[in-house]
Amino acid sequence: MSDHEAPKINGVVEHKIGEEVLPFVEDEYGGVIVEMKTPMDPKCFVATLRYSFTQWRSQGKKGVWLNLPLSHVNLVEPAVKEGFRYHHAEPTYLMLVYWIPESESTIPSNASHRVRVGAVVLNHNKEILVVQEKYGLLRGSGVWKIPTGVVDEGEDIFAAATREVKEETGIDTEFLEVLAFCQTHESFFAKSDLFFICLLRPTSFDIQKQDLEIEAAQWMRFEDSASQPIAHKNELFKVIHSISSLKMEKNYIGFSKKPITTFFDDKLGYLYLNKHDMNNPIS
Amino acid sequence: MSDHEAPKINGVVEHKIGEEVLPFVEDEYGGVIVEMKTPMDPKCFVATLRYSFTQWRSQGKKGVWLNLPLSHVNLVEPAVKEGFRYHHAEPTYLMLVYWIPESESTIPSNASHRVRVGAVVLNHNKEILVVQEKYGLLRGSGVWKIPTGVVDEGEDIFAAATREVKEETGIDTEFLEVLAFCQTHESFFAKSDLFFICLLRPTSFDIQKQDLEIEAAQWMRFEDSASQPIAHKNELFKVIHSISSLKMEKNYIGFSKKPITTFFDDKLGYLYLNKHDMNNPIS
Repeated sequence: MSDHEAPKINGVVEHKIGEEVLPFVEDEYGGVIVEMKTPMDPKCFVATLRYSFTQWRSQGKKGVWLNLPLSHVNLVEPAVKEGFRYHHAEPTYLMLVYWIPESESTIPSNASHRVRVGAVVLNHNKEILVVQEKYGLLRGSGVWKIPTGVVDEGEDIFAAATREVKEETGIDTEFLEVLAFCQTHESFFAKSDLFFICLLRPTSFDIQKQDLEIEAAQWMRFEDSASQPIAHKNELFKVIHSISSLKMEKNYIGFSKKPITTFFDDKLGYLYLNKHDMNNPIS
Repeated sequence: MSDHEAPKINGVVEHKIGEEVLPFVEDEYGGVIVEMKTPMDPKCFVATLRYSFTQWRSQGKKGVWLNLPLSHVNLVEPAVKEGFRYHHAEPTYLMLVYWIPESESTIPSNASHRVRVGAVVLNHNKEILVVQEKYGLLRGSGVWKIPTGVVDEGEDIFAAATREVKEETGIDTEFLEVLAFCQTHESFFAKSDLFFICLLRPTSFDIQKQDLEIEAAQWMRFEDSASQPIAHKNELFKVIHSISSLKMEKNYIGFSKKPITTFFDDKLGYLYLNKHDMNNPIS
C-alpha cells in the first residue's frame, strides 16, 4: 500500500481501485469493523470492498461490520447488493454486517428490548402520585395511573424513574427500590419490553404538570387509586397496588441499587439486589 | 383516487405519479406507518411520497414511519434525501422516520438495551456449574464462570437462562429466581446492557459441552469457584458468589416469576417479584 495520501478530488478520496483495503479495526471475536468516514462513490466503494474481502478471507476473518453514517447513504444499496445485511440503525448511522465463514454465524443480535420505568411515589398522607395521559391506550379513559416512561440509552433505571416523575409532575424524588419488573413481547414493533416498577420517596409536594403528554396530575388517596374500575380487569395495575400496599406497611422487600464494577470488563454499573438479605442474613 | 387497480409492468406497480398516497395505517399517536411491499422505482417513490406528505400535513399527522424491507434498498437513499432519518433496523428491514410538526418530536427511541442472563446452577453436592469460553474477554484467562448468554428478541428471561445452560453444557434446569440484575452502558456499540443473574435447579447431571463457543465445562466445588483469583478484583463475580452462598443457606430472597396481563394492552407477560413477601406478609 502506498505511503502517500490519496489525492482528493472535490472532497472525495480517490482510492486506487482494487489495491486498497477499507480502513478497519479488529474486534475481539475475529471480526473487523469498518467505519466509513470519507465520502466515496459507489463504484469505487464496491471495488475497494471486494479487494478488502480477499484480504479478510485469507486472514480468516469472520464477521465484517460496516458502519455507514447518514451522509454515506449512497453506499447502502451497493453494500446490500454485495451481500451485507442490516444489523441495527440509529438516527445518524446504519450498521450492516457480513458473515464470511461457512460455519454458523455467531454475530450477536441487535438490542432486543425497550426498557421502561413506572414510578410509585407515596407521600406521608397515604397518597400516591398519579397522572392522566394525552396519548396512548389509556387516553380519554379517565384512568389515573402512575407516571411511566422510556429509559434512554445510557441512562440508569433509577435515574430514569426520577427524571420521568420530575418531567411529568414537577415532583422531586429519591429512588428507593425496584419493587418488581415485567417482561412482555412485541410491544414496540418486534421489540420486547422490560418494565421496572420503582418505589420513590417524594422530596417536594407541589405538582407542576407537563403539557406535552400529560392531561392531568394529582396526589390521590391510595385507596381511591387502588379501587379504580381498571383494577378489576387489569392484573398488573392490581399487583402494583398490592405491592405498594405491603410496602407502606414495610412488609415487602424489593431490589435496592448498589454501584459495582462488572464481570467482564470492569465497567461501572449498578447492581439491583435484595440488599436487606445481603446485610441482614436471617441466621 | 381511482377505483381501478394500478396496471403492473414487469412486476412493478405503475402509480399515477402525484395522485396516489403511499399505502399506510394510522397509529395511536397521530402518526402513520408506511410498509413498502410492492417494488417501486425511486423516481415514482419520491413523487408519491411528496404527494402523500401534502395529504398527511393537511390531516395534521405527526410522525411518519417508513418500513423498507431489504428488497427495497433502492429507496433508502431517496428517502433520506427527502428528510427521513434512520430509526432502527433488523436483518430484513430498515425503519425510517420523519417528524412533520414544528413542535418537539415525541418519536420514541429505538430499543436501547441488550439483555443477557447468567445462570447460577447449584447441585446437591454444593457444586456450581461453570464454563470456560473460547471467545471474549476471559478467553485464555483460566477463569471458570457461570454460563451466560444473550436473551433473544421475544424470549422470556427465565427461558433464556434455561436455554443457555442447555446449549453450553447440556444440563437440564428449572428456573427458580432472579437473584439480582445489573445495568451497564455502552456495552454493545452504544447500547446499554441488562444482565439478569438467575438461580436454576439442575434436573440432569451429565455435562455435554457445546464446541462452538465453550472451551470446557464442569461441576466445580462452590468454594473453589468462589475463591478463584478473579474474585479479589471483580466485584460482580464476588457478589454472585456471596448471594449464591446465602441462597444455599436459604437466607436470600430474589424475584420469582408470575404470569400476568400487562397494564396498557392486556398483553401476556411475566412479572418478576418477591413472591415470598407477597404470599407471606410479615405481619
